[in-house]
Amino acid sequence: MKPYEHGGNVYDYEGEIIDFSSNINPLGVPEWVFDIIKKVDLTKYPDIKYRKLKKAISQYVGYSQENIIVGNGAAELIHLFVRAFKVKRPLIPSPAFLEYERAVNINGGEPIYFRLEEDYGFKVNLAKLLSQMEEADALIIGNPNNPTGQAIIREEIGILLKKAEILNIPVMIDEAFIEFMKDYKNYEALPLIKRHNKLFVVRAVTKFFGMPGVRLGYGIGSPSLIQKLEEHKEPWTVNTFAEAIGRELFKDKTYIEKTREYIHREIDYMLYALRKIDYLVAFDTKVNFLLLKLKTGSVDDLKQMLLKRGILIRDASNFRYLDKSFFRVAIKKRQENEKLLQSLEEINMKNLMENKERVVI
Amino acid sequence: MKPYEHGGNVYDYEGEIIDFSSNINPLGVPEWVFDIIKKVDLTKYPDIKYRKLKKAISQYVGYSQENIIVGNGAAELIHLFVRAFKVKRPLIPSPAFLEYERAVNINGGEPIYFRLEEDYGFKVNLAKLLSQMEEADALIIGNPNNPTGQAIIREEIGILLKKAEILNIPVMIDEAFIEFMKDYKNYEALPLIKRHNKLFVVRAVTKFFGMPGVRLGYGIGSPSLIQKLEEHKEPWTVNTFAEAIGRELFKDKTYIEKTREYIHREIDYMLYALRKIDYLVAFDTKVNFLLLKLKTGSVDDLKQMLLKRGILIRDASNFRYLDKSFFRVAIKKRQENEKLLQSLEEINMKNLMENKERVVI
Repeated sequence: MKPYEHGGNVYDYEGEIIDFSSNINPLGVPEWVFDIIKKVDLTKYPDIKYRKLKKAISQYVGYSQENIIVGNGAAELIHLFVRAFKVKRPLIPSPAFLEYERAVNINGGEPIYFRLEEDYGFKVNLAKLLSQMEEADALIIGNPNNPTGQAIIREEIGILLKKAEILNIPVMIDEAFIEFMKDYKNYEALPLIKRHNKLFVVRAVTKFFGMPGVRLGYGIGSPSLIQKLEEHKEPWTVNTFAEAIGRELFKDKTYIEKTREYIHREIDYMLYALRKIDYLVAFDTKVNFLLLKLKTGSVDDLKQMLLKRGILIRDASNFRYLDKSFFRVAIKKRQENEKLLQSLEEINMKNLMENKERVVI
Repeated sequence: MKPYEHGGNVYDYEGEIIDFSSNINPLGVPEWVFDIIKKVDLTKYPDIKYRKLKKAISQYVGYSQENIIVGNGAAELIHLFVRAFKVKRPLIPSPAFLEYERAVNINGGEPIYFRLEEDYGFKVNLAKLLSQMEEADALIIGNPNNPTGQAIIREEIGILLKKAEILNIPVMIDEAFIEFMKDYKNYEALPLIKRHNKLFVVRAVTKFFGMPGVRLGYGIGSPSLIQKLEEHKEPWTVNTFAEAIGRELFKDKTYIEKTREYIHREIDYMLYALRKIDYLVAFDTKVNFLLLKLKTGSVDDLKQMLLKRGILIRDASNFRYLDKSFFRVAIKKRQENEKLLQSLEEINMKNLMENKERVVI
């Protein structure tokens, strides 16, 4: 993997591949989306102020339109936060989504990292994190965190925010995966925006609804923070398709509930099976992907062997503090998950150790 | 108008409005686009490297894929250029597209301006421009220029580039409207990228094809310049719809030719009629929009009176060096153009001067 390479890049491979490398809702795109698409008026610019879209989001999250900004996926909003606040030295609990670090580097900064310890199940040690914040000019947290699948409960987020207020530094919490959580209401930071002017909560939309290619994200914060971000934002970055779909998505409560139920049933199923495979460590997760570790051998070999079976996994070695023993897989449809499990079972650990599988198969 | 407000913002107004404020191809969206849309696979991320899209553009412009970057409209690429080259003090022949200035301001800089003189038909005085370049850290030119509709011929662009090379400053030429020109081949800067490493040519795609809401632009430059920009670029900014449509657009030579023919026939028709209206000055144009000037009165009044007739014009007073006597209109369908002409004729100049029209009508 190159330093900032992401998952989901099936275009590097030929033939039919099941993509476990990108964390997309496996339930597929809601049917009604196709009707919306047919009716989109291509001949107009999107509303540069995205009034109707913001209204739909406002109704979903329960905050005013003044609290909301929309973007070309969560990625645009992450870069925007870094630029608008001139973030040069944020503290990032890591391993973490690579785009945080990249955004800071592009902006001429260099993050500092809080190491999420494997021995601690990649959970945050709050006291340690609080003390390390003193060196930082911002705090950037994935919650739940990618690729670890762990999350910080709101009470603890609140403590971090109080510290941030004393230090007068902005905080971005990336909740791109929060809707996949069973008990997301105990984790989402939204209720804290009223007390914390410099808190920015980022959400992805189209990812959860199985349409990462449509590119729609939003962010929530105080009116003053949102205004600052709008002043730095490029115009029309959410196109007419994303705008039209986004105006309807949040109404589909059935899809949202069904997804959560499905994911958590499937996590249990997957973890139970993966933990029977003796060359793997499967870490707990709160969301729709799993971090896995090879007890022996390299993910390069495993990845090749799985590709031969039409399966793409996410080599996790370009995440900070992880190495060639780590990989990430998304939760997919039952049949696809079974194919992954079966393939992982088939791949003989002894051969993997001796790196002979390529000859044997 | 607010400082950075653009045209095309029909969402500020209620009811059916003919939008002369945004410069969109009036021929409408090519029919085949709707078939493409139906087949778009929403469930995948776009190719983060946009290989097939770049290949299509490569074939259209006749330069290699290494010379090409794609973006969320021309706007993303304009901002990207400013950021990647840390442009703080570019020279901008003005009045010009407002997003150049905004991008520089957001980036903490302050442009310097080369004044395009009304008495000179808003054309560039090359000698003067060359001498002013010495104060600048970059050159940004709209060619053809918005809102003036004027353009600099390639020989003169070549002279500017030689000067830029001596000064070692980057040059961005925004050719968003160049395909609307009859004799664009004498104006496009593309052949100069081979000799000038720091030349970046920006093009809009979906605007020309009547789909500004789809958001697709591209830029062309030396491989080293393109690589520098890619390093600063946010991921996946062109969504799956724009990617899929963009892969086919450039093949539609008929649409491209038909557009050019139509626009220039219509410019002649419009200019002839507008120049008979005694309270207006209509400037020459090379593209699909016209800059107009009121000999008396304010565009605020004219705009209100036209809105009552269901017509939206672009108040041009927030463009540098223009004032409340200037406005811009796009070339639209014949019937719509006729409605504009008829409305302008109806509006009595004397009443306009005395600002009584609101009562009379």
